[in-house]
Amino acid sequence: MKLILSLLFALLTLPTMAQKKLFTLDDLIPGGSTYYAHSYPETKYLTWWGDACIEQGMDKCELVSKNHGTTRTGLVLNSLTLENINKILSAHGRKTIDHLYNATFPFPEKPYVMIDRGREKTLIDWISQSLIWKIDLAPNASNTDWSKKSLSTAYTIDHNLFVTTADGAVHPVSNDGTPDLVYGESVHRDEFGIEKGTFWSPDGTLLAFYKMDQSMVSHYPQVNITLPGGTPQGASRCAQPAPDPYPMAGETSHKVYVGIFNPQTDHTVYLNTGDPTDRYFTNIAWAPDGSRIYLIELNRDQNHGSLDEYDAHTGEKLRTLFTEDNSKYFEPRSPIQFLPWDGSKFIYLTRRDGFNHLYLYNRDGKLLRQLTSGSFEVMDVLGFNAEQGTILYTSNEVDPLQKNVFSVNLKGKRTLLGNSTGWHTPTLSESGSYFIDNYSSPIIPRHIDLVSTADGLAANVLSAPDPWASYQVPTIKTGTLKAADGVTDLYYRLILPTNFDPQKKYPTVIYVYGGPHAHNIDATRNWGARGWDIWMAQQGYVMFCLDNRGSENRGLEFEQATFRHLGVEEMKDQLQGVEFLKTLPYVDANRMGVHGWSFGGFMTTSLMTTYPDVFKAGVAGGPVIDWRFYEVMYGERYMDTPQSNPQGYEETSLLRKANQLRGRLLVIYGGNDPVCVPQHTLSFMRACIDAGTYPDLFTYPGDGHNMMGTDRVHLHHVITRYFDDHLK
Amino acid sequence: MKLILSLLFALLTLPTMAQKKLFTLDDLIPGGSTYYAHSYPETKYLTWWGDACIEQGMDKCELVSKNHGTTRTGLVLNSLTLENINKILSAHGRKTIDHLYNATFPFPEKPYVMIDRGREKTLIDWISQSLIWKIDLAPNASNTDWSKKSLSTAYTIDHNLFVTTADGAVHPVSNDGTPDLVYGESVHRDEFGIEKGTFWSPDGTLLAFYKMDQSMVSHYPQVNITLPGGTPQGASRCAQPAPDPYPMAGETSHKVYVGIFNPQTDHTVYLNTGDPTDRYFTNIAWAPDGSRIYLIELNRDQNHGSLDEYDAHTGEKLRTLFTEDNSKYFEPRSPIQFLPWDGSKFIYLTRRDGFNHLYLYNRDGKLLRQLTSGSFEVMDVLGFNAEQGTILYTSNEVDPLQKNVFSVNLKGKRTLLGNSTGWHTPTLSESGSYFIDNYSSPIIPRHIDLVSTADGLAANVLSAPDPWASYQVPTIKTGTLKAADGVTDLYYRLILPTNFDPQKKYPTVIYVYGGPHAHNIDATRNWGARGWDIWMAQQGYVMFCLDNRGSENRGLEFEQATFRHLGVEEMKDQLQGVEFLKTLPYVDANRMGVHGWSFGGFMTTSLMTTYPDVFKAGVAGGPVIDWRFYEVMYGERYMDTPQSNPQGYEETSLLRKANQLRGRLLVIYGGNDPVCVPQHTLSFMRACIDAGTYPDLFTYPGDGHNMMGTDRVHLHHVITRYFDDHLK
Repeated sequence: MKLILSLLFALLTLPTMAQKKLFTLDDLIPGGSTYYAHSYPETKYLTWWGDACIEQGMDKCELVSKNHGTTRTGLVLNSLTLENINKILSAHGRKTIDHLYNATFPFPEKPYVMIDRGREKTLIDWISQSLIWKIDLAPNASNTDWSKKSLSTAYTIDHNLFVTTADGAVHPVSNDGTPDLVYGESVHRDEFGIEKGTFWSPDGTLLAFYKMDQSMVSHYPQVNITLPGGTPQGASRCAQPAPDPYPMAGETSHKVYVGIFNPQTDHTVYLNTGDPTDRYFTNIAWAPDGSRIYLIELNRDQNHGSLDEYDAHTGEKLRTLFTEDNSKYFEPRSPIQFLPWDGSKFIYLTRRDGFNHLYLYNRDGKLLRQLTSGSFEVMDVLGFNAEQGTILYTSNEVDPLQKNVFSVNLKGKRTLLGNSTGWHTPTLSESGSYFIDNYSSPIIPRHIDLVSTADGLAANVLSAPDPWASYQVPTIKTGTLKAADGVTDLYYRLILPTNFDPQKKYPTVIYVYGGPHAHNIDATRNWGARGWDIWMAQQGYVMFCLDNRGSENRGLEFEQATFRHLGVEEMKDQLQGVEFLKTLPYVDANRMGVHGWSFGGFMTTSLMTTYPDVFKAGVAGGPVIDWRFYEVMYGERYMDTPQSNPQGYEETSLLRKANQLRGRLLVIYGGNDPVCVPQHTLSFMRACIDAGTYPDLFTYPGDGHNMMGTDRVHLHHVITRYFDDHLK
Repeated sequence: MKLILSLLFALLTLPTMAQKKLFTLDDLIPGGSTYYAHSYPETKYLTWWGDACIEQGMDKCELVSKNHGTTRTGLVLNSLTLENINKILSAHGRKTIDHLYNATFPFPEKPYVMIDRGREKTLIDWISQSLIWKIDLAPNASNTDWSKKSLSTAYTIDHNLFVTTADGAVHPVSNDGTPDLVYGESVHRDEFGIEKGTFWSPDGTLLAFYKMDQSMVSHYPQVNITLPGGTPQGASRCAQPAPDPYPMAGETSHKVYVGIFNPQTDHTVYLNTGDPTDRYFTNIAWAPDGSRIYLIELNRDQNHGSLDEYDAHTGEKLRTLFTEDNSKYFEPRSPIQFLPWDGSKFIYLTRRDGFNHLYLYNRDGKLLRQLTSGSFEVMDVLGFNAEQGTILYTSNEVDPLQKNVFSVNLKGKRTLLGNSTGWHTPTLSESGSYFIDNYSSPIIPRHIDLVSTADGLAANVLSAPDPWASYQVPTIKTGTLKAADGVTDLYYRLILPTNFDPQKKYPTVIYVYGGPHAHNIDATRNWGARGWDIWMAQQGYVMFCLDNRGSENRGLEFEQATFRHLGVEEMKDQLQGVEFLKTLPYVDANRMGVHGWSFGGFMTTSLMTTYPDVFKAGVAGGPVIDWRFYEVMYGERYMDTPQSNPQGYEETSLLRKANQLRGRLLVIYGGNDPVCVPQHTLSFMRACIDAGTYPDLFTYPGDGHNMMGTDRVHLHHVITRYFDDHLK
């Protein structure tokens, strides 16, 4: 009888179903074979040539009207075609290119297009159809950093730093580089906003660079076993060691130096910082005239910082402009920026009042004015409009889930620019008078506008259609609920199963991250729902996600609630989510699962072992298992050291909770994960074995902290199968 | 209604069930908390004092009557008590002992008991109640080898070799030992019967030893992450590299030298073998007078060997006594043994006629007589009875599944000694006139007899009761079926589910090993059924096992059928087993599983990927995945090199078959497996990921090739759960 009813239902609903397609996992996961064709909203490649907006096409480049958003054929760009560029490249014995999507226009005043292949750069005058300048770096050069002012290029080879000047002369900056002594590379494990290791002075004549000695640091014994296609490659058939300097919390850390190289004299001075042991040198910035260099120095405790000024020619420290302290931690992430129209003043970003805000200082370090304030976060400084005397930035002032573009003048008057909804990724023009406003919102897959920063007038360039229009898209809802503190609003996202039947009870999976510097619910397309969420909804799961205290964009107190015992408050908040889910009649509280990666893998494992009666199945990816195995910079910021906070480390260690595992837990890790090193997962396996509990395991040999490409699709098949096996 | 029926059934069957107990996994698996109490048959600890048999007790030692098998109190051993021994140990400042189970009696003519703690040896006269001699080696000494003739002890410390003579003087043999240059340790990865690295001359005045240079060998990058109890231990919190010299098939191998050290002169001579590259020096034996040393030299191809005689004082090679060739491979595993009553003759074991047999040679290498022959295998030479002029050995002449004790005289007359059934583990007395005959059979848990080698008369010492008498033991059957060649008989073992109901259809699991040097079905207790087999039968599985061609004890042709393409013929034979199972009405052919470890892990993975329609689920442990990753000695014997047999390596590589995986396959490996290195399993994972197939994975961090102790119990819970999840 039940079978007949099912058949009837199937027959009745079939016509409706047939109207819209079902997703494949390849449609939904980046790396999937059909992802770009079926999921990625249409886009246009736009860039700035001074204040002129150019659409970079396949075989030509065209100007875009800032008034109408339409491309204008004819005019100055007529001769800028793929065919012409390739003719010139060929004539000079250079490789041709396949498209112009990456063409850039560094000089507002000149018809020069840059064809940049990283190690091979070519500057072409498309009016005279001639090659203006070129550079060819060694094939093993990396970390290239080009100064458009001097045409000098900094780069590294095997951890040594070189500069090739405009004339093609090669200037070695160092010659003793090794994996343990690196020049010109990013330092401090990319924390404190550091993303690179070279910093050209404004006129491109001096190069500031990082040098890092990590010989005293423990080396994590990574192993390379990957044999693509199953065939031994390279010199050795046997797996090879790949030791990776990795300073663990509380242990000896690396030492960082800042040098300044002058290609004209081939001379390097190092900033006279004194012994660099247990000190962080971050947020390097140049004075407009290149005579001074600024950095923010932070103590190892990360609770005291100072903005220091050095002489760029002698390396001597001139003065400390000001200091900043925080009882928990102080985390500078943005270099100071001098006003383009007044080199005696700079802006500085800090969360010292509880939210990230802009402050105006004079060059003596005197605070002139707090430019922004309120219960919102300034996210990025885009630049300046000198004519208007404004600073352009993004913030979530409109809504905690949004990111919008604003200007602020020196009196603190803020103006919203462009569309007031959604999540914006703007690109400012040379003078700051316009920006390309690429944005999405829960109902907008992608819009691109050109917006004037003076008056906010916008012209639409693209309104991309919904790539999922022909698919069965599940219902996606958001809302707020109270954190475990009873006060704070937390945002959640709830996705109902495709073809939702409110009479049924569904297995429910919580996707969690939960750590700092990240969030999951925002006002982007589909409220930031992940492709896998959609896939799981299609498989008949309720999908839930909650940004707990500790996550980003909600202010310092929100983030610092987790200080010295990561995971504890976060879990309490996630349990608020569970309580909410239990009030929903269609959620089967006996079939609750949880999945997360990295900090989310830590959260997943924590939840599975701390609340064994709540969760029946979980999948933890690349988890932190014990913060003692995590690195110094990130780890000690939130946890202090194992020496100074033994209780916090003990309380949060999942090795201690391995004996509490009851449900089914699959732990997955990248075989060469350099972030959450394999020791985390393997130690947890060992602890579970010793405790007589039974996790499951999978690994992606050769992969790092995240799976990419087809591995990412494979991964999500594995995760889905695990919930199908144990939660359905 | 169904529920009520179940309840009724439960009530009806409860009284019957209650009569016998069910096993726990701890009852059945070595390492389980109740294994020794519930599964291990009662035993007695017996040893020889010359030709007197002594039972080593907890707190006393007693003579055992060779006529009646009973212990005799009183007499000479009266004063040999734990209390007395500990008094003497204490009086000399030595640690006391807890029992006398390990007491040995090296000197037939003297009332001396040896208390041997490895590094601390004490020889006590229990009549005079005095300490005769003692030695205390450094705490980090290992590989101890004691000569009872000279009382000298050889041992190694950090890969260097030392000898401490009877007077306590320490003689360093080497001082340049490193992990890459080892002295006094076993060589050639324990192949060719090699188990140790030191060999005392008959009178204990000269020490032959192995030296091995493995600096030219690739080092497998093992990693130590184990943190027992979840707490960081040792100097470093970060995982540590543990490189292990591991020569992979076809790659550069190590070099072995044989030295002879004279503690009286502190002088070492090395045998003048010439360049040791790609040569094996095995089966070291001393001439009775210590003037000559013999070894079998084998080429890297392992198809040509020679028995060579060297001068023990000069190291010069004197002559080759004879050579032996085989078109596939020649595998010498037993050193020659001179007749105790005639030093001009020795016995030699070889399979040159197709089975392992004893041959008598004179010391010039002239073959005098083949002593044993027939379609059976000589297993071990136990020693000699000089008075009778006989050689004592074990063989499976009675039945291919048995191992019995025989004597043979120099005319080739063989005599069965002791019980004619089962599987015997004999220990010969000093003169060879008696042996302790410890044996089991399918219906005998353990018997111990004392047997005269002159007339075969036996006295029973122990008839252990069945430790499973109170348990529900499943039905265990054996039989033969034809191999895939249509000719050869293969032995199988079939275990029916506990409480077998012939009307039901059961999931069925094949346990497989299948490689050389091992077998699974024999005439030991319960036909060699493993504890896990019993456990699975109790969970409702049919358990099946078949010793395919390639396994041991069936002759050379049987073993060499697999030459140059390991796994291929073995799988064909296993499929014969599958066909047999399909004829059994109670076997559910849609729910067939397979499990094996090491070579059996290779077989399991091979079967799962080669016959994806046959097997629904499998668990492969510590598998070989590609013989290119296996070591030189074992691997090249059966597979030749990847260079000389590329087709065989390609044909058997499971990396190539990763794309054929359809069923559920769990692969498990020891995190520090030094035998089948983790590269096997990890490369297979990578190949499956690349091919879009979906194996499962588990690992035991810190464990080697096999799981021991409580890990072994955990492992079998994991294996069982996997079949419960995917086969039931």
